[in-house]
Amino acid sequence: MMPLHSHPSGRHFLQIPGPTNVPDRVLRAIDNVTIDHRGPEFGELGRAVLAGMKKIFKTEGDVIIYPASGTGAWEAALVNTLSPGDKILMAETGHFATLWKKLAERLKLQVEFQEGDWRHGADPEQIGKRLAADSGHEIKAVCVVHNETATGAVSDVAAVRQAIDATGHPALLMVDTISSLGSVDYRHDEWGVDVTVAGSQKGLMLPPGLSFNAVSAKALKASETAALPRSYWDWKEMLAINPSGYFPYTPATNLLYGLREAQEMLQAEGLDNVFARHKRHGEATRRAVRAWGLEILCVKPEAYSPALTAVVMPEGHSADAFRKVVLTHFNMSLGQGLGKLSDKVFRIGHLGDFNDLTLCGTLSGVEMGLGNAGVPHNKGGVQAALDYLAQTSRAQPA
Amino acid sequence: MMPLHSHPSGRHFLQIPGPTNVPDRVLRAIDNVTIDHRGPEFGELGRAVLAGMKKIFKTEGDVIIYPASGTGAWEAALVNTLSPGDKILMAETGHFATLWKKLAERLKLQVEFQEGDWRHGADPEQIGKRLAADSGHEIKAVCVVHNETATGAVSDVAAVRQAIDATGHPALLMVDTISSLGSVDYRHDEWGVDVTVAGSQKGLMLPPGLSFNAVSAKALKASETAALPRSYWDWKEMLAINPSGYFPYTPATNLLYGLREAQEMLQAEGLDNVFARHKRHGEATRRAVRAWGLEILCVKPEAYSPALTAVVMPEGHSADAFRKVVLTHFNMSLGQGLGKLSDKVFRIGHLGDFNDLTLCGTLSGVEMGLGNAGVPHNKGGVQAALDYLAQTSRAQPA
Amino acid sequence: MMPLHSHPSGRHFLQIPGPTNVPDRVLRAIDNVTIDHRGPEFGELGRAVLAGMKKIFKTEGDVIIYPASGTGAWEAALVNTLSPGDKILMAETGHFATLWKKLAERLKLQVEFQEGDWRHGADPEQIGKRLAADSGHEIKAVCVVHNETATGAVSDVAAVRQAIDATGHPALLMVDTISSLGSVDYRHDEWGVDVTVAGSQKGLMLPPGLSFNAVSAKALKASETAALPRSYWDWKEMLAINPSGYFPYTPATNLLYGLREAQEMLQAEGLDNVFARHKRHGEATRRAVRAWGLEILCVKPEAYSPALTAVVMPEGHSADAFRKVVLTHFNMSLGQGLGKLSDKVFRIGHLGDFNDLTLCGTLSGVEMGLGNAGVPHNKGGVQAALDYLAQTSRAQPA
Amino acid sequence: MMPLHSHPSGRHFLQIPGPTNVPDRVLRAIDNVTIDHRGPEFGELGRAVLAGMKKIFKTEGDVIIYPASGTGAWEAALVNTLSPGDKILMAETGHFATLWKKLAERLKLQVEFQEGDWRHGADPEQIGKRLAADSGHEIKAVCVVHNETATGAVSDVAAVRQAIDATGHPALLMVDTISSLGSVDYRHDEWGVDVTVAGSQKGLMLPPGLSFNAVSAKALKASETAALPRSYWDWKEMLAINPSGYFPYTPATNLLYGLREAQEMLQAEGLDNVFARHKRHGEATRRAVRAWGLEILCVKPEAYSPALTAVVMPEGHSADAFRKVVLTHFNMSLGQGLGKLSDKVFRIGHLGDFNDLTLCGTLSGVEMGLGNAGVPHNKGGVQAALDYLAQTSRAQPA
Repeated sequence: MMPLHSHPSGRHFLQIPGPTNVPDRVLRAIDNVTIDHRGPEFGELGRAVLAGMKKIFKTEGDVIIYPASGTGAWEAALVNTLSPGDKILMAETGHFATLWKKLAERLKLQVEFQEGDWRHGADPEQIGKRLAADSGHEIKAVCVVHNETATGAVSDVAAVRQAIDATGHPALLMVDTISSLGSVDYRHDEWGVDVTVAGSQKGLMLPPGLSFNAVSAKALKASETAALPRSYWDWKEMLAINPSGYFPYTPATNLLYGLREAQEMLQAEGLDNVFARHKRHGEATRRAVRAWGLEILCVKPEAYSPALTAVVMPEGHSADAFRKVVLTHFNMSLGQGLGKLSDKVFRIGHLGDFNDLTLCGTLSGVEMGLGNAGVPHNKGGVQAALDYLAQTSRAQPA
Repeated sequence: MMPLHSHPSGRHFLQIPGPTNVPDRVLRAIDNVTIDHRGPEFGELGRAVLAGMKKIFKTEGDVIIYPASGTGAWEAALVNTLSPGDKILMAETGHFATLWKKLAERLKLQVEFQEGDWRHGADPEQIGKRLAADSGHEIKAVCVVHNETATGAVSDVAAVRQAIDATGHPALLMVDTISSLGSVDYRHDEWGVDVTVAGSQKGLMLPPGLSFNAVSAKALKASETAALPRSYWDWKEMLAINPSGYFPYTPATNLLYGLREAQEMLQAEGLDNVFARHKRHGEATRRAVRAWGLEILCVKPEAYSPALTAVVMPEGHSADAFRKVVLTHFNMSLGQGLGKLSDKVFRIGHLGDFNDLTLCGTLSGVEMGLGNAGVPHNKGGVQAALDYLAQTSRAQPA
Repeated sequence: MMPLHSHPSGRHFLQIPGPTNVPDRVLRAIDNVTIDHRGPEFGELGRAVLAGMKKIFKTEGDVIIYPASGTGAWEAALVNTLSPGDKILMAETGHFATLWKKLAERLKLQVEFQEGDWRHGADPEQIGKRLAADSGHEIKAVCVVHNETATGAVSDVAAVRQAIDATGHPALLMVDTISSLGSVDYRHDEWGVDVTVAGSQKGLMLPPGLSFNAVSAKALKASETAALPRSYWDWKEMLAINPSGYFPYTPATNLLYGLREAQEMLQAEGLDNVFARHKRHGEATRRAVRAWGLEILCVKPEAYSPALTAVVMPEGHSADAFRKVVLTHFNMSLGQGLGKLSDKVFRIGHLGDFNDLTLCGTLSGVEMGLGNAGVPHNKGGVQAALDYLAQTSRAQPA
Repeated sequence: MMPLHSHPSGRHFLQIPGPTNVPDRVLRAIDNVTIDHRGPEFGELGRAVLAGMKKIFKTEGDVIIYPASGTGAWEAALVNTLSPGDKILMAETGHFATLWKKLAERLKLQVEFQEGDWRHGADPEQIGKRLAADSGHEIKAVCVVHNETATGAVSDVAAVRQAIDATGHPALLMVDTISSLGSVDYRHDEWGVDVTVAGSQKGLMLPPGLSFNAVSAKALKASETAALPRSYWDWKEMLAINPSGYFPYTPATNLLYGLREAQEMLQAEGLDNVFARHKRHGEATRRAVRAWGLEILCVKPEAYSPALTAVVMPEGHSADAFRKVVLTHFNMSLGQGLGKLSDKVFRIGHLGDFNDLTLCGTLSGVEMGLGNAGVPHNKGGVQAALDYLAQTSRAQPA
C-alpha cells in the first residue's frame, strides 16, 4: 500500500480552511470499534451528540445529523422546505454561495442571485429592499453564507434577519455555517434563523462525513407542505426517532464517536474562549499580511473572518505556483483561490484545533514561500504577528 | 464522557448482520490525519479506491462513492435514472426491499411491488412474466435486493437478468448488494446489472458512512434524460472529476483511508476465498440451527445467505427477550426481526472480518442464550458446527 | 513493510498465558502522544499509576514501576535485598521458578532449590521444615511463584508465610505474581509478603514492557545493607522521587498511559469480580479437558489456576504438532510446554481481558484441533463448558 | 480519568531534547494487538528490527535490544564488560556523563572522571595523555557521551578512538549515543567503538522503553571474563537466541512494532538526509539565539549539536521561570537546565520527527516567551532563522 503519510519528516501543516487538523483525541475516538446502532449503548451516544449540537448551534429547536458532507446539508435545507419552482433569494458572497445556488437550480428552484464582488459579506440592506419589493411574497427563502470560505468575509446574519423582519416578509432565512460553526460566534435561535447548515470538518474538528441542519419551528411547519421529493434528507423520519437517540437509517457511528469527543473539547474550552481564540488568530494573520504589503481580499474590517484569511496575489504572480512552493518546500497546504479567484488568491486557514505556535509556523511558511516563489513582499510579517500574539497572550488555565 | 465501551470484560461479539466487526487494520487506517482533499496525495488515494471498487463490483464501468450510508445509494440509483411518475417493479423479498420501495414512493415513483413471503429471494419467473405483459414498456426499472438482510435469502440476479432479457424488455436492472458485496459472489458486468447499490459497513468491513453505485453504460445513458431533481447524488459531476481521483464536493477522507485498507485485505485473501469462507460459515451455522431443532427462515436451500442466518423463534417465545438475554449474559449483539418479523426471528451475522473460532463463540452464545431464555431447543448445535468446521478446515497459507 | 497482521480473516485468538489480549481501550491509551516526563501533566499521571498499583497489590507499602519486563523485576527483588553469596530458598514449582533460580545464581547467590514435580504449588510444610532446620538463619529469603505460568498450579502464599512465621525465622518472603496479579486473588500486606514481583502483560492487560516490585518495610530495611551492586533496579532513588509522581530516569511513558487505563478497567469491574470471572473460566476449561478425557497437569484441585490450564498430551503425541495445527487451521495461539514439559503439555490461557464467548471459541479451537491433529480424545468438551457457563451465567450490570 | 491532553487547543510543542514528538505512523504501529512472542510472526519482526538497528548503528557486529530505558543500556554496557573494582576513564561532558559515572560507581567500578566545564565535548588529547600514562593498562574502558543532552556539545568519537589507538592502549571505548543516534552522524564500526549505548525516545522517534547496545568483537570477548554479576542485561543469552528473531525473556512487543516503523521512516528519508536536516535546524536555531543576543552554552562551533541547543540565561534571570511562561502562555515544553546548570540554561530540542515550520513555531515560542518573561533580548531571532531556512530550503522529493 502507498503509505498515507508520504510527506517528509515532521507533521504536515494542513492550513487550508478545512478540513482542519483533527485533534488526536477525536481521531482516537473515531478509531473505536463500531457498535450496534440499534443497541442500548448507541441510544446514549445518539442522545448525547444531538444534545451537544443544540448547545453549539445555540438552539432549543431541532437538530438533524446526516451521514453526508456539507453539500448534503445544503440540499437537505432546500428539499425539506421548498417546492419545485419556488423562488429563493441568495446572496453572492463568493464561490460557495455560487455552488449553493447551482445546487438549488439543479433542484429546479428559481434562484435570484444578489450580485456581489466576492469581497464582502451579504448586504442586509439590499436584501431588505428586495423583499420589500416582493409584495406578493413569491420569495420563499433567503439564503446566506455566514462565513464565505472562499473569501474570508463574514455576513451579519442578525442584520439580515432584522432587514427581513422590517419588511414583514415571511421568507425563511437559511444560513450556511459550514466554515463558521465552532469557530465564529453563531446563534441560531437569537438571530432568528430558520435552517442552519453545517458540516463536521471545520470548527467541529472532525474529518468530513457528517453534516447538520438546525431547524426552527417555522421551517418545520414549511416542511409539511414542501413538495420537493426527498427521502434520505427528510427531516420527518429523523425527528420521529431522534428523541430516543436512534436514526431511521444507519448512521456514521464512528464519526459520531468523534463528534462527542469534539463537543466535549469545545465545551471544556468554552465556546466564548474558542471564538476569542479564532478572532485573535485572525487579527495576527492580518497584521502579518499587511506587513508583507499584501492585500486582504475581504475589504470590510467588520467582516474579517476569524476562521481564514484570503490574500490577494500581486498582479502577474500565480497563487497556485506560490502554494506549490509552500507545499514542496515547507510541507504546508494552503487553500487555493476558487472559481473566479482561481490562481489569484491564496487562503490561510486558522481555524479548528489550533494555537499560537502553529500559527507562527504557518505564517513563517507563508513568508518564506513568498520569498522562494519570487513574490514581491516586505519581510516582517511573522514579526508583526509575534508582536501582537505576545502582547495579547496570557497564561492558560491549567 | 461516557466510555465508549461500557460492555463488561473482553471483546463484544457484534454478530448483527452489519455493521460488522471492523478489523483493527481498517480502524487504524481511519485514524490517520485528514489530508487536503484537493492536494496531490489525495488524488492518488481517490484513484486507488475507485479502481479497487471496480474489482470488487467486477465491473469495467463506472463506480460512484458517496459520503453517505446505503440508504443514500438507494436514492442515488433511482434519482439518476428515473423521472417523476416513472413506474418501477420491485420484488418484496423482505424489510429492506420494503424500505427501498417506500423510498421510491417518497420520490414520487410508481412502484409495483411483487408480493413475497419474506422467506425467498426474488422470483425471476414472476418478474419475467410481468415484463412480458408490459408491452408498452411502462416499467422503467426492476429493483431487486441481492441478499435480503432481514431474511437471509439471496436472489438469483443472473436469473433475473435472463428473465428480463428473454422478454426483450428494456427495463433497467438495479440491485441492492448492501449486505452481500464482499461476502457473496457478485458480478455487476457479467450479470448485466445496470445499477448496483452498496454500502461500507458489511462485507467491506468498514464503519458506516460510505455508499456506492456501480453504473452500466445503459444506466448512464438513462441518466441523461432522467428528470428527478438531484444534485448531491448526481453521477455526472462525480464522473467528470473522478478520473483524476478527486470529488466534486468534500469526500469522507478518513473512511476512504479505511476503504483502501479493506480493499487490500480482500484482495490479499482473494475474493473467491472470501466467498468460500462465508459459504462455509453459513453452512456451519445452519447445521447448528437444525441441531437445535429451530427453523431457518429462508426456505429455499439455494437461496441460503452466506452472510447471515435468520432463525424463526418457536411460537410463543419472544425473539427480542432472547436477544436481550444473549446481550446481557453473554455480551453479544444479534440482529432483531424487522418489520413484520419483529420479535419473531433473530438474525446471526456471519459476515465480514470473521473466522471459525469467532463463529464457534457466536453459536455458543446462541445455544447458551436459548437455554437461559427458556426457549425450547435441543443441545448440540455448537457440536454440529464444530464437526462440520473441523471436517472442512485446512491449514491457512502463511 | 511486512504487515503486522499476517493472519487470515478475523481476530487472532491469543490464548497463550500471556501476553494476553490487550483491550482496545488500553491500546488506544498507549497510542497517545508522548509528553514531557518532567512536566506537570506527567506528575499527575505518575502519582495516579503508583496509587493504582497499591490498590491492586493490596498494599500500603511501596510500589516500584520499572521500564522493563518481568524478568527485570525478578532481578530487582534480589539485588535490592541480598548480598553476594547470600543463601536463598526457592521452590521448584516449574519452568519459571527454575528460570528465577538461574537468574539468582547468575547474580552469585546460593540457591537451595526445593525439588518439585512441576504439578504442584510450593509446599509450605516443606518450607517450614527447612527454615526450622536453619537455626543459624543463613537463609535470607524464601522465593515462591504464586501462579506458575508453566504448569497452572497456584501456591498458597498465606500458608507459606505462616510456615515461615511458625519457625520464627527472619527470612524475607518474595513472591512472583507475574501471571496472577489482576487475575488471581493476591494480598501483599495481609499475606505478609516482603517483595512481590509483577509484570504488565498478563492480568494487567498491557503489552509487555513494564514490571513491578511491591515492597514491605522489612524488605526496605534489608535494602539498606544489601550489597549486591545495583543502579537501574535500585529502589532508593525511585522511592525518593516517586511521591511527586516522577521517576529518576526516563519512564516508559506510553505504557504508563495504558497502565492507568487498565487500572480503571479493573477497578470498574471490581477486583473481586475479576477474580471470580477467572475462577469460573478456569472451571469451565477444566470441565472441557475432563470431557475430552485428557489430563490436567496440576494435580491438586485447590491449586488449580484461574489464569491458565496446562493439559497433558497423551503419550506418543506431540503437543507442539497439535499447537501448530491449531495455529494454522484455527488462527489461535496456545502456550507451549516449557523446559522439561516441552512438547508434552499445551497451555490454555484464560486470563486478562476475556469473556465467556471468547472462551467458547478457544475451547472449540482446542477440540477441533485435537481431532484434526489425530490426538485421541472424546468429543463433548465444549459442550461441558457450555453447560457450566450457561448454568453459572447471569445478566451483567449495565 | 484525567484526560491525557489537558493542554489547551492545538498540538503541544514538545521541544525538550527527548522524548521527541513521536510520528503518528509510529504511534499507530505501537497500537497494534500484541502477538505471541514465541510464534512465527514474531520471529520475522525480531529479525527485521535487529537487522534494522545494525544499519542505523552502522555495524556488522551485534546489537542487543533491551525492554528498558537508556539508563539500562548504560548499565548493560558496563556489567557485560567489566569486573568489580575495574578502573574506567570517563569524560565529564555534562549532567548525563555525570549520571553515567554515578551509575558506574554504584556498580563498584573505580571511575576516573576527566574534569570538564560542561561546555565542550570530550577532549581526545587529554584522554590520549591519560592512557599513555597508564602503562599498566589498569584502565579497562573509556566512556564518552557522543551528544551530551544536557549541554548540546558533541564529542569527536573518531578522534577519541585515534587518541586511544595512538597509545596502543587496549581500553575498550564505550559511547553513549542516546540523544544522537538517528539524528547525528554515527559510525560504530568505522570509528572503532566497542560498546555503543542508545535509547528509543530521541532520534529513533519512539516513546521511551527500548534501549540498545551495539557490541564489537572485542567487547564480546571482554564479556567472557567480565565478572560483574548480570542476568537481565547479559548479552550472552540474547545473542544465543537473537539470530532466530526471538528473545530470552519477554520483549516489549508493541514498542518493537514502532521500532520497525521508525526504521523504515529513517531509511526512506535516508540517514544522510536525516543528519543534514538536523544540522540545518541546529544552525537555524543558533542564528536565532545569536540574534536574540543570548549565549550558546556550547563554546566550540565544531561541537555544536544538531539535536539540541542549550541557551545560557542572562545573569539574574531564571531559566525555569522563563520555561514556565513558555509552557503556560504558548503550550510548549522546553528542556530544563540539569545538575549544576539548573535554572541557568534552557534547552531547545530540534531532533526527531521535525521540520522547518515546527522549528519556526518553536523559535517563535521562545522569542515571545523571552519577552513575556522579561528576559533582556533583541527581537529578530525568528527572522534570522527564517532567512537561513528560506535560503537553504529546496523542494522535497515527492
